[in-house]
Amino acid sequence: MAHKIIRNIKRVDPEIVRTLGELGVATVHEAQGRTGLMKSYMRPIYPTARAAGTALTVSSQPGDNLMIHAAMDVCQAGDILVVTTTSDSTDGMFGDLLGVSCQAHGVVGLIIDAGVRDTSELTAMDFPVWAKAVHAQGTVKSTGGSVNVAVVCAGAAVNPGDVIVADADGVVVVPRDQAAAVARAGAERVAKEEKTRERLRNRELGLDFYGLREKLKQLGVVYQDSE
Amino acid sequence: MAHKIIRNIKRVDPEIVRTLGELGVATVHEAQGRTGLMKSYMRPIYPTARAAGTALTVSSQPGDNLMIHAAMDVCQAGDILVVTTTSDSTDGMFGDLLGVSCQAHGVVGLIIDAGVRDTSELTAMDFPVWAKAVHAQGTVKSTGGSVNVAVVCAGAAVNPGDVIVADADGVVVVPRDQAAAVARAGAERVAKEEKTRERLRNRELGLDFYGLREKLKQLGVVYQDSE
Amino acid sequence: MAHKIIRNIKRVDPEIVRTLGELGVATVHEAQGRTGLMKSYMRPIYPTARAAGTALTVSSQPGDNLMIHAAMDVCQAGDILVVTTTSDSTDGMFGDLLGVSCQAHGVVGLIIDAGVRDTSELTAMDFPVWAKAVHAQGTVKSTGGSVNVAVVCAGAAVNPGDVIVADADGVVVVPRDQAAAVARAGAERVAKEEKTRERLRNRELGLDFYGLREKLKQLGVVYQDSE
Amino acid sequence: MAHKIIRNIKRVDPEIVRTLGELGVATVHEAQGRTGLMKSYMRPIYPTARAAGTALTVSSQPGDNLMIHAAMDVCQAGDILVVTTTSDSTDGMFGDLLGVSCQAHGVVGLIIDAGVRDTSELTAMDFPVWAKAVHAQGTVKSTGGSVNVAVVCAGAAVNPGDVIVADADGVVVVPRDQAAAVARAGAERVAKEEKTRERLRNRELGLDFYGLREKLKQLGVVYQDSE
Amino acid sequence: MAHKIIRNIKRVDPEIVRTLGELGVATVHEAQGRTGLMKSYMRPIYPTARAAGTALTVSSQPGDNLMIHAAMDVCQAGDILVVTTTSDSTDGMFGDLLGVSCQAHGVVGLIIDAGVRDTSELTAMDFPVWAKAVHAQGTVKSTGGSVNVAVVCAGAAVNPGDVIVADADGVVVVPRDQAAAVARAGAERVAKEEKTRERLRNRELGLDFYGLREKLKQLGVVYQDSE
Amino acid sequence: MAHKIIRNIKRVDPEIVRTLGELGVATVHEAQGRTGLMKSYMRPIYPTARAAGTALTVSSQPGDNLMIHAAMDVCQAGDILVVTTTSDSTDGMFGDLLGVSCQAHGVVGLIIDAGVRDTSELTAMDFPVWAKAVHAQGTVKSTGGSVNVAVVCAGAAVNPGDVIVADADGVVVVPRDQAAAVARAGAERVAKEEKTRERLRNRELGLDFYGLREKLKQLGVVYQDSE
Repeated sequence: MAHKIIRNIKRVDPEIVRTLGELGVATVHEAQGRTGLMKSYMRPIYPTARAAGTALTVSSQPGDNLMIHAAMDVCQAGDILVVTTTSDSTDGMFGDLLGVSCQAHGVVGLIIDAGVRDTSELTAMDFPVWAKAVHAQGTVKSTGGSVNVAVVCAGAAVNPGDVIVADADGVVVVPRDQAAAVARAGAERVAKEEKTRERLRNRELGLDFYGLREKLKQLGVVYQDSE
Repeated sequence: MAHKIIRNIKRVDPEIVRTLGELGVATVHEAQGRTGLMKSYMRPIYPTARAAGTALTVSSQPGDNLMIHAAMDVCQAGDILVVTTTSDSTDGMFGDLLGVSCQAHGVVGLIIDAGVRDTSELTAMDFPVWAKAVHAQGTVKSTGGSVNVAVVCAGAAVNPGDVIVADADGVVVVPRDQAAAVARAGAERVAKEEKTRERLRNRELGLDFYGLREKLKQLGVVYQDSE
Repeated sequence: MAHKIIRNIKRVDPEIVRTLGELGVATVHEAQGRTGLMKSYMRPIYPTARAAGTALTVSSQPGDNLMIHAAMDVCQAGDILVVTTTSDSTDGMFGDLLGVSCQAHGVVGLIIDAGVRDTSELTAMDFPVWAKAVHAQGTVKSTGGSVNVAVVCAGAAVNPGDVIVADADGVVVVPRDQAAAVARAGAERVAKEEKTRERLRNRELGLDFYGLREKLKQLGVVYQDSE
Repeated sequence: MAHKIIRNIKRVDPEIVRTLGELGVATVHEAQGRTGLMKSYMRPIYPTARAAGTALTVSSQPGDNLMIHAAMDVCQAGDILVVTTTSDSTDGMFGDLLGVSCQAHGVVGLIIDAGVRDTSELTAMDFPVWAKAVHAQGTVKSTGGSVNVAVVCAGAAVNPGDVIVADADGVVVVPRDQAAAVARAGAERVAKEEKTRERLRNRELGLDFYGLREKLKQLGVVYQDSE
Repeated sequence: MAHKIIRNIKRVDPEIVRTLGELGVATVHEAQGRTGLMKSYMRPIYPTARAAGTALTVSSQPGDNLMIHAAMDVCQAGDILVVTTTSDSTDGMFGDLLGVSCQAHGVVGLIIDAGVRDTSELTAMDFPVWAKAVHAQGTVKSTGGSVNVAVVCAGAAVNPGDVIVADADGVVVVPRDQAAAVARAGAERVAKEEKTRERLRNRELGLDFYGLREKLKQLGVVYQDSE
Repeated sequence: MAHKIIRNIKRVDPEIVRTLGELGVATVHEAQGRTGLMKSYMRPIYPTARAAGTALTVSSQPGDNLMIHAAMDVCQAGDILVVTTTSDSTDGMFGDLLGVSCQAHGVVGLIIDAGVRDTSELTAMDFPVWAKAVHAQGTVKSTGGSVNVAVVCAGAAVNPGDVIVADADGVVVVPRDQAAAVARAGAERVAKEEKTRERLRNRELGLDFYGLREKLKQLGVVYQDSE
């Protein structure tokens, strides 16, 4: 239960991370059996924010960003920072200086179950952030925590090295050992959806090609001509 | 209390719907005596979203979008989908495929007291959505519900065929039988407000031309020169 | 405890207000010892909103905007309206007409611990607003309140004439008698941060130049090579 | 859209109200097809609170209890007050004086989508209240509203004269014309549940006597001996 | 802006504090013109909790209870602890050990805009607490703060030495220099309410003896015989 | 990613579970380094509720209690049910019938990150429940899920067989392999706290015997005689 910083973690192959990022949050979430989503309060600081990377996890005391600085010591290009606090907080633990540091080391974004500040500067730098709150509230550097340990972030379990995919729809976690399979399943899903899209565009009904009319009947839903 | 799908409903005349849409939410709400507003948590997925249509109502089990598919079977061009769940949910019950289907049938937007996903795609398609949450969480198609029945959506009572007006300020419901009167009252209000705007621009005070100085006096509010 | 309108208040020198506005919320908050921030639920109605002014405070009954009209009677160019209600409310107490009136008198923005409406129009006019909610809900003009008295707005104490700085990160209050000192401290902070930014850009670590490695050791945080 | 007070409404037969009250909220809700529940934020002010009555509805301006006083003018013994505000509020619109008045006229309880105060006194009087908040915040008597009109209370549509059943589990509305049928269906449900309770007490499994093992298989849920 | 501990503060006369405590929260709040209430989320940990005392204020870093210990150094019998954090937190900053310490020094209760723990023990000791949350989450003792400075607690401004009255209805603050006047006004209010209670018990209507029938007419509220 | 029911899991020794239960939530949480707490919204349905058991975990579709019935098939005496949903829900997934079934099989309580109903009956049976909401809302039995898999419940990671301790302060999880060590550390903590309690009772200050005066000095906190 002591605080620790793990220097080396296994990371998913960058090619797979790239594929998962292209698939986007909704597709990845479906492709892995509707699991791994963070809560819907995690919102991007600008609407076009989009990122995928390997999780560099941080567990901090609320109101204290010491361990984010510690995380920069063991990060790698392609990582995405995943910051949690040991209890609920909306303090602005991360600002544009840490954003500069992240970009200097190739860290591709921030997922923080707390607050963020300097959002205009971070937006101008195109450093994507998903956070619970935008808040200028400053933090101290006084209390120990851990880097690259298992955490729960916004309701989702995250292990270091897992893939994180984030876009306008939110944030999803792909466990390291499922990443390749999910990437394949997602690609298949996209192909299938393209055909569905075409049929819907031609005014076919989901009710028909998903075979739902029978379902409605079984469930006892009745059609009635008027009120 | 059985689940049902009503095929035919009475709808407000499209010309009146168009007028109400042009008036916008705040004006319509005032014109009908400050009634009919949905709760303020209903937010558009993009800032320029704006829509007006006749309500095609859906009552669903939370986490289940079967009845949205059923609604597409009885929709008409000019309708706006109004989706409610039988208990609180933020699941992403609607995505870009359903958006494509809506646009193919002339449905002009979505009001959903739950979640929505594929928001980038829906924004790119200019399909306007007002929702309680943006969430990628997928849903099943297993449980019956109803289409074109009376519902409560985000605190407002909605009957099928009522007019829904939605813009950056939120969502308002106009009961079917009041639509024509509200459209007239709203137009008068706009004309009057234009004059007020002009006077305010010329630095006149609302205190003076609304006659509020006397009111302040009656209420015992006193002026004091300094602290 | 009677309701009152104070006509004349002391205001901070406009040059200091301008400086504080340029520093921005996060810097000002840090420069005054991490105090004075409003709660994070206060959000701008458009992302580029930015304002600084002297507080013209209003205490209103919820759902009643009579006292906002009263405030226009004693405002001065360079003021920023700070509106609070005597209990929680999200009603849209302020719309584009009041925005026109504010701009006609040189009031530079609105901070409201309640709702705002006509947000498209206010955005088009570039009248910046920070609010708890966007809501079209209309209000009455029936109950007394006060103007230019001490208020609590979104968790922060505000006295009339204090400086308010607001941007994408939120809203901060600078007490009147600290404004000059905070402006100076903020400017120094900005200079220092520019140097830090440069070092971080060159891949130096905060851990090193803030001297945090020793801190980690004292706190018993251990480095571990792998999981 | 004018404000009005309806003097006479149709009410459900007291015997049916009594039966529904004995069945309790959960049973009544199930007996009418899982409809009519208010949101879960409606909580009793003391754990043993329990009431059933015919709805005497009030629509008020937030922060204004004028119309509650007006409602006392048209109430009847056996009514239950149902108070809503035109926008969100937690003000304490009802206190022990109104509680005394209610008891003097035979009103059996209060359902209020806002705040209540004097909760110790109301508890001592055994006057049951379900509210969104306990708050001492006082209110004015300045703005018109309506009595005995259709309202939405805590997410549920209520018409005057409907039956309201409330207990530790929350509040449910039974539409006037369904009350007799729901009372019958509820009584049957109770009898059936007593048998189920006996079987469960004897360690039978719901999985078996609800026939859910087959369901699990169809859904592809697999049993596995160990992790 | 440095952190400080003020040893000596002016306190309201104990007799006045006692009177205000007997009046209770709702009466005191009304007697001082409906001001001074904390937000409704401040709830007692047991229903019979009731306290009145002079405010011993604490401003802490979230998740850090160092300054509560510091406050015990300057407390006096009859004080009530008022604890705030510099940003939102629900951590359990106070438990039964601090409760023992408070009782040893005559501190009569705790008002904390954060969390509390050991609530069973505190209840058994009859040490009354009003808090935002019950949470076992432990805290550190690492960061400076202040004692006996002006704070904002749950939306209300509190100065050291102000009177705090708390009961089942919430928490109200009486400014030091108004305490005597409020106590007098409250006593008058109680006498008057007793008469009102008697009239209501005799089935008189508030509508009549508050003269509200005329008001309803002026507001255009109409009586209607039936739906 | 398929749904599964694990029949056999490793469980912590009952004697250790009993010890942890006696220590209570706050002590256990501290004894394991301030980890493992669920969010503060998890509240007991009655104030004296207290339980400790080995986690029998359930992952369900929101609004669907099929998998709770499935869990009863693999439970053991001494287990505590831990129910999560795949997305946010407050539906009353558990009522007195399931409570009877639990007691028949020796299941000692319920931790549910959703709603519960029949709370009067469950209280009368002394079946302790910690829940996010009390809500009568009924559920279906239509969708697959899993039993005895790793879940996140109210922000805490829970593995099947972990120890759950719950009381008036909330709910804490002790990982299976740390249970014995935490029980020992907790017992030591209790002994030490008893001594501290005695010193505090004798009016000693935490400031002195925790050595915090030096800390305050280092942090630059200054004592000042008066305002």
